[in-house]
Amino acid sequence: MEDFGFILDPAFEATSVSVGKLPLCEVCLQADARWPWLVLIPQKLGLREIEDLNVVQRGQLIEEAVAAGAAVRAVGGVLGLPVEKLNLGALGNVTPQLHLHLVGRRAGDPAWPGPVWGVGAAQAYPVETLAQAVVAARSALNIC
Amino acid sequence: MEDFGFILDPAFEATSVSVGKLPLCEVCLQADARWPWLVLIPQKLGLREIEDLNVVQRGQLIEEAVAAGAAVRAVGGVLGLPVEKLNLGALGNVTPQLHLHLVGRRAGDPAWPGPVWGVGAAQAYPVETLAQAVVAARSALNIC
Repeated sequence: MEDFGFILDPAFEATSVSVGKLPLCEVCLQADARWPWLVLIPQKLGLREIEDLNVVQRGQLIEEAVAAGAAVRAVGGVLGLPVEKLNLGALGNVTPQLHLHLVGRRAGDPAWPGPVWGVGAAQAYPVETLAQAVVAARSALNIC
Repeated sequence: MEDFGFILDPAFEATSVSVGKLPLCEVCLQADARWPWLVLIPQKLGLREIEDLNVVQRGQLIEEAVAAGAAVRAVGGVLGLPVEKLNLGALGNVTPQLHLHLVGRRAGDPAWPGPVWGVGAAQAYPVETLAQAVVAARSALNIC
């Protein structure tokens, strides 16, 4: 995937940590220990909507989303928050650079059964847990 | 697409009207005139997560989602609510049958910039507008 000139919106750097890169997307771990939560950002300039990707890229996006779902389950294992339902969302109302959220949900979680976006304040990860979560996500995504 | 035995969850029938069928998904118009809003439901039994589809079906799903985005813009035209940003969501925390929301958003809409799910009470469509919206969505989706 050509990523020449791609720049990650600083909004992601403020709220997440980098996990690594897949062929299409950069993967970030949302810095909020209330949910196992990854964000996929396609590494191309000027994207706002999924329709801005071509058909091959869209197929790659949904495959990377499925892989990220498995990684979210792995992060849930680290957090002791087993995933009962995956939530996928591409909103972009606040940060317009195209990105896809994969969030692991469970009955009784702090926003259940509503969506997580905009709910309360993020809960920081303990440093050691954050490191373990990144390792677990990289392993699930086969990022070396 | 084989849909033998597929049954639409009654929850969709209570909150939306059928627009028609694409190769993979049944398409419904959410009966809430606050936003142009379509729901795609893959016509296969027992699906809960996107990972439950195979790779061919997943490619089809994202293409149908892109087509549904165009249809949401057409519905926005009928409603006089031009779409500035598409929101895509697959949550399923309340209704577990796999489904994908495509919602047309605009700055200042009743939930902006937060997500629409669970916000306030649905606003009924005027009967004539509902019929026009279904026609516009069918036309955008090439459903005859």
